[in-house]
Amino acid sequence: MRQKFRPLPDHSGLAAFFRDVRAETRDLASPLSDADATVQSMPDASPAKWHLAHTSWFFETLVLAPALPDYAVFDSAYKYLFNSYYESLGPRQERPRRGMITRPTLDEILAYRDHVEAAMEVLLLAPLSPAIVETIELGCQHEQQHQELLLTDILHLFAQNPLRPVYRFSAREEHEPSKPPRAGERRFDGGLVRIGADGKDFAFDCEGPRHRVLLEPYSLADRAVSNAEWLEFIGDGGYRNPLLWLSEGWAKLNSESWSAPLYWEERDGEWHSMTLSGRRPVEPAEPVVHVSYYEADAFARWAGRRLPTEAEWERAAADLPVEGNFLDSGRLHAAPAAARDGMRQMFGDVWEWTSSAFAPYPRFRPMPGPAAEYNGKFMCGQQVLRGGSFATPKNHMRPSYRNFFPPDARWQFSGLRLAGDSDDA
Amino acid sequence: MRQKFRPLPDHSGLAAFFRDVRAETRDLASPLSDADATVQSMPDASPAKWHLAHTSWFFETLVLAPALPDYAVFDSAYKYLFNSYYESLGPRQERPRRGMITRPTLDEILAYRDHVEAAMEVLLLAPLSPAIVETIELGCQHEQQHQELLLTDILHLFAQNPLRPVYRFSAREEHEPSKPPRAGERRFDGGLVRIGADGKDFAFDCEGPRHRVLLEPYSLADRAVSNAEWLEFIGDGGYRNPLLWLSEGWAKLNSESWSAPLYWEERDGEWHSMTLSGRRPVEPAEPVVHVSYYEADAFARWAGRRLPTEAEWERAAADLPVEGNFLDSGRLHAAPAAARDGMRQMFGDVWEWTSSAFAPYPRFRPMPGPAAEYNGKFMCGQQVLRGGSFATPKNHMRPSYRNFFPPDARWQFSGLRLAGDSDDA
Amino acid sequence: MRQKFRPLPDHSGLAAFFRDVRAETRDLASPLSDADATVQSMPDASPAKWHLAHTSWFFETLVLAPALPDYAVFDSAYKYLFNSYYESLGPRQERPRRGMITRPTLDEILAYRDHVEAAMEVLLLAPLSPAIVETIELGCQHEQQHQELLLTDILHLFAQNPLRPVYRFSAREEHEPSKPPRAGERRFDGGLVRIGADGKDFAFDCEGPRHRVLLEPYSLADRAVSNAEWLEFIGDGGYRNPLLWLSEGWAKLNSESWSAPLYWEERDGEWHSMTLSGRRPVEPAEPVVHVSYYEADAFARWAGRRLPTEAEWERAAADLPVEGNFLDSGRLHAAPAAARDGMRQMFGDVWEWTSSAFAPYPRFRPMPGPAAEYNGKFMCGQQVLRGGSFATPKNHMRPSYRNFFPPDARWQFSGLRLAGDSDDA
Amino acid sequence: MRQKFRPLPDHSGLAAFFRDVRAETRDLASPLSDADATVQSMPDASPAKWHLAHTSWFFETLVLAPALPDYAVFDSAYKYLFNSYYESLGPRQERPRRGMITRPTLDEILAYRDHVEAAMEVLLLAPLSPAIVETIELGCQHEQQHQELLLTDILHLFAQNPLRPVYRFSAREEHEPSKPPRAGERRFDGGLVRIGADGKDFAFDCEGPRHRVLLEPYSLADRAVSNAEWLEFIGDGGYRNPLLWLSEGWAKLNSESWSAPLYWEERDGEWHSMTLSGRRPVEPAEPVVHVSYYEADAFARWAGRRLPTEAEWERAAADLPVEGNFLDSGRLHAAPAAARDGMRQMFGDVWEWTSSAFAPYPRFRPMPGPAAEYNGKFMCGQQVLRGGSFATPKNHMRPSYRNFFPPDARWQFSGLRLAGDSDDA
Repeated sequence: MRQKFRPLPDHSGLAAFFRDVRAETRDLASPLSDADATVQSMPDASPAKWHLAHTSWFFETLVLAPALPDYAVFDSAYKYLFNSYYESLGPRQERPRRGMITRPTLDEILAYRDHVEAAMEVLLLAPLSPAIVETIELGCQHEQQHQELLLTDILHLFAQNPLRPVYRFSAREEHEPSKPPRAGERRFDGGLVRIGADGKDFAFDCEGPRHRVLLEPYSLADRAVSNAEWLEFIGDGGYRNPLLWLSEGWAKLNSESWSAPLYWEERDGEWHSMTLSGRRPVEPAEPVVHVSYYEADAFARWAGRRLPTEAEWERAAADLPVEGNFLDSGRLHAAPAAARDGMRQMFGDVWEWTSSAFAPYPRFRPMPGPAAEYNGKFMCGQQVLRGGSFATPKNHMRPSYRNFFPPDARWQFSGLRLAGDSDDA
Repeated sequence: MRQKFRPLPDHSGLAAFFRDVRAETRDLASPLSDADATVQSMPDASPAKWHLAHTSWFFETLVLAPALPDYAVFDSAYKYLFNSYYESLGPRQERPRRGMITRPTLDEILAYRDHVEAAMEVLLLAPLSPAIVETIELGCQHEQQHQELLLTDILHLFAQNPLRPVYRFSAREEHEPSKPPRAGERRFDGGLVRIGADGKDFAFDCEGPRHRVLLEPYSLADRAVSNAEWLEFIGDGGYRNPLLWLSEGWAKLNSESWSAPLYWEERDGEWHSMTLSGRRPVEPAEPVVHVSYYEADAFARWAGRRLPTEAEWERAAADLPVEGNFLDSGRLHAAPAAARDGMRQMFGDVWEWTSSAFAPYPRFRPMPGPAAEYNGKFMCGQQVLRGGSFATPKNHMRPSYRNFFPPDARWQFSGLRLAGDSDDA
Repeated sequence: MRQKFRPLPDHSGLAAFFRDVRAETRDLASPLSDADATVQSMPDASPAKWHLAHTSWFFETLVLAPALPDYAVFDSAYKYLFNSYYESLGPRQERPRRGMITRPTLDEILAYRDHVEAAMEVLLLAPLSPAIVETIELGCQHEQQHQELLLTDILHLFAQNPLRPVYRFSAREEHEPSKPPRAGERRFDGGLVRIGADGKDFAFDCEGPRHRVLLEPYSLADRAVSNAEWLEFIGDGGYRNPLLWLSEGWAKLNSESWSAPLYWEERDGEWHSMTLSGRRPVEPAEPVVHVSYYEADAFARWAGRRLPTEAEWERAAADLPVEGNFLDSGRLHAAPAAARDGMRQMFGDVWEWTSSAFAPYPRFRPMPGPAAEYNGKFMCGQQVLRGGSFATPKNHMRPSYRNFFPPDARWQFSGLRLAGDSDDA
Repeated sequence: MRQKFRPLPDHSGLAAFFRDVRAETRDLASPLSDADATVQSMPDASPAKWHLAHTSWFFETLVLAPALPDYAVFDSAYKYLFNSYYESLGPRQERPRRGMITRPTLDEILAYRDHVEAAMEVLLLAPLSPAIVETIELGCQHEQQHQELLLTDILHLFAQNPLRPVYRFSAREEHEPSKPPRAGERRFDGGLVRIGADGKDFAFDCEGPRHRVLLEPYSLADRAVSNAEWLEFIGDGGYRNPLLWLSEGWAKLNSESWSAPLYWEERDGEWHSMTLSGRRPVEPAEPVVHVSYYEADAFARWAGRRLPTEAEWERAAADLPVEGNFLDSGRLHAAPAAARDGMRQMFGDVWEWTSSAFAPYPRFRPMPGPAAEYNGKFMCGQQVLRGGSFATPKNHMRPSYRNFFPPDARWQFSGLRLAGDSDDA
């Protein structure tokens, strides 16, 4: 987001950020075969190869072509193949057909990455205009978004395979509590508070402008909803009682035969779930993940609570350090809440559905140029999620961060935290 | 909405309201043949006969059965046939198959109405508990909603018929301006304002509780967008420029081949539109109607403006008299704005899309009992519309009224009014 | 079918045939309300009103307009509304949207019939060219086809109604056997036989030319398969064993959840079926009806037999009188086979699926003019049925008659007769 | 097909056949990357990897497991993954989801092939029962079918890629005629002829029993329809005239927007086609390929001719040597007809659509055991094609060979030859 007075990242910091992000993406792709990286398991998901190429296309098209004299495009066909949804940048491969592109191969796409990175290194030697600095930073943040998507999408693909392949073994600790710690409640006063990005650090356009909102007194659970609690919901007929559900959620539940979170399967009376480390038993102490907004909302109603608004969430997060179980931990799963008091799991572990529809903040203006299509055109039909997950890079997260998905989406690392009106807390 | 301290309508007022509403519904159905009243033209629409029966089922099920000793149900099968979406009241005819019910005939449904009305007259002679009074009032308001739906649905049906049948000739005046009066702007200060039903008069549960919201300074156009302006939008390629559209709107435009509002057809270079009075030329001075939220939003972007939030709209409407071109006028079309200063067309003429997703107000509680399913379960995936239309009964309207439809809905009498941030007005 | 040397029907015979057919159609429509006659219950079915109008459109367009000077078309819009599928006669109301036409009303369509009939009476007073005589005869035979379709379609509509309305009570006898008589076998020699219409009497183009076919020795069951036998098939898991089914049939069974013939429902352990006389218990002695080709084929495999080819059927029927339980009986159901020896139920009762795909006979030529589209363009993807049903007019039937429907069609009055290779009989 | 008195192939011949077929399949896969071999471009197509594995599964399941003591299954999951449609062999990966299987990798599948081949070599050392010999032969013939499918499917996949990758360059000659030689006609007498496999050599069950059929006098074109002729058909509005088309074909043409054969694209006024050698101009002298039955039938009607029945085709082919442009030529395209008299292109070049629905021959019996599902259950809704194509192994072809596909299939190497009734030739 172009903020006039925001101090730009310094040159060497930007270069380091760029290199780190690029290396991380490559590492995330390293367990994948050419075929793994090519197949598209559903229209909403993209092939890993596509993520690898698109994030390079972004730098090539929005940074290198305009800013580096004599930059030679790697392959002119990529403009068409790897444009995601930028209407202003011309026609593109239809989204549901991204998985048809068996050529270029994974190796060729890695060579494309080399080519773009080499040119970026040249560019990063020279003085850069503020606009280019901002676009490079945007490109890095953009690529971090695709890092998480690469993981959600590869998990979805592997979950379609009866062999349930392992993407990567988890770095998680072996001896963990089998039950989640008791969930407490934290109360917050009402009043006028400020939310949104303040323009001092990078933020996407949709995170601003910073503005005042009015809150009524409310409370938030001090940890995410756990699998143990979700099992109670299932056991109590939560998936069979229409009175708990939004009308569209109930219709979806029926048309798709939902009876548990995505990737859960009952085998011999025990629940298992497909994860990035293959199929494993559902751990009661871990936060529930892979639930849709509809399920999160129904659960909250069943529990006599509600989901928080995004303003309620952001106000509670504003003073907390951005710490938690992120991609950097190597765990690749959500982790049980720590056995201590206080707000836990606000950042990392699972994205938390909020009751807020994704909408423009007052006086919102999209980024200029092609990036105008980045967020604004999706401001309808989606719900905001907050806080990041175990697959989000830690330095990508901030309290003002707004993620958004349609209410029936389940393949993201999405869970929930309960809220309430404080006078009934 | 049950409000503890709301003075209930007096007995004779309630009886008169009931009789008026019931008579009005019957009058609205009077131009229809048995077949007209039976066919369902799409899953979103319902047959007129279904509207006639369902509004009677409501009184039978929620008022007469519990409150009138010895009430004899007219036909036990109707419980199944004419339940709309009340899960707590048992299984029902699937919505998309309401048009299969050729029997009972229209005459039989009118007899059903007689039966229910006769029983209601008996009931209305006796003292009534507050709960029953409230449910009768709810039933009348509910039936008024179905009056408008009966008209939107019959128009949709007649629009599928190449003969373009006339529902009823308009009572509109013959000599009207051919151009809309110039649109002005009215500015509003920001600050904390109260919106929502205050509980003194009838309101649906979703209209409350009354609560404070924070507004930034804004402006509203003083009349609705006209056909003349919409023709400019079309002429300027508004339906061909993806950069104006929400992503989902652009997808819908393409999949449905939208190039003008619903019911518009170009014949020999001139635009016509199907209306309740049959096919007639598009009148430039009239407000545009039958546009989706996606189209309204794209138009506003094209015009360099935006849609208002529902709070902005309600604050502007709060002090205005509830007057305008309603069902009572007999016009059955939107009318050109009056050639005078000041806010016009806020009530009546066309429902105005707002940028607000339909969501619960803070501390919202659904009505008790089966009516809990009335509004709350639809609070996802819909946009709020405000102000009523030429097909809304005047005494059904109030500033706090929240109508809601999915963003792609076009068969309602929906138009728009532009808004802006006041510092760019 | 234009056969050069076929003696044409005499004038008075033709007029009588015309009048009888027209009166019969009107009688068939007499139990229907305007709404019954308007609703289309699925794309494959047509509204009764459409049948009434289309059969009149046929005479108006192919007979009156060309042959009667000064004939005034009843309503010029009907050309569009009631053309079925004649591409050479211009555009038409899309088939799946025939049910949108609530206007003209049933009364108006009956007035249309009056108008056409009055003009036909004028025409029938004058000398007629052979071509016109043939087209009038074709129009009468065409209308007889629609008589049966009117019944299949109204039954389908009424079966969608939870009230299961009665179209007309059956004229069937009350005391009938509860079990079908034993089924015997009749053997036929192989050799060269002639099948197809010989051109001496009316036949559709697809019934000719008469030609030789080579048959191997075969046998035919002497009655149709009964409900009793079908119940055995169900009881033996016939709908659960994929090895009995054609691949496409098994896919359809699964996607549509077939577990019994269309219209069968199990209530308290007893099978009932929806019929033109409303819901009634499945009678074991009656032939099974409302089975698809896929089901008929699976049943035959289960029984260790096969379905006959159409040539095998026609050769067996060639010498039999065209007698049986036809529309004329007023029974409106299939009847148990008579308790006697010999081939029974070959004509009437239920259409019998054959293993023959509907294909042109050697040297087939379509009728000239618009009627060229009558049959020829459907010669792909359909199976031939033979013999007529309880809803076929008796004087419409002949041994060479070829009916045809797609293999998944179940709403016709379709059943089956078993065949075998005679050396395994 | 088990024929009691058929001399079995000798041991060494069988072993050589097995080795040749297996090597050929591997060679066909050699230009493919792991990703190429994994993606499924539509539900009707299968991944190359699946073809490689399924053909091995066939030997493993039907030959090695029953016949080789101590045979160790390569991977027990493959039973599920690579069963095609054998209901009697248990559940299987759903056909439209074959492309989700990124693991096992292509290398693992090639190792699977090694494993199966090694075991087969052991088996082939021992004496073999006639049943096993027949199943091995069936397995080889089966694999040859999949060789052609591997090519049709990979072409379909590559055609979805905007880069239009080359599978393999053609071995075709460079200097070829630009126009096809004039097409002549050959007349055939009518009478009783015998068709079908005589049991002396291998044939699939559906090719027998050999039986007599009665033919009327007819004629056949002496070469296949060429691209030059197809361009005339297009130029004459063949894709715009509904009177040329079967009703279902016209519906398909419209729903799929057909205006030329599959893979044809017009670029700067010239037609090109996607082929196994990438995109190349449409060569007028070559036979047309990638047309559906609907198109072939419409073309024949346009030309005033018809398609041959399969009996007419087989009788004409019976005396011809099985020679032509087969897979063995390495050309990978259809070739222009030779400039000489006589029947040409009957074998190889393009599969020829016949007017015969795929149906059982008189007294047809499926193969015993699991192979019973091989052909019989597809005998509905498909048309027979004859003669093989440039992608068919030469030693897989014989005059009695019956290929079959649904009438809308276009991705096969399908073309046509015209026929006529000889008195109009």
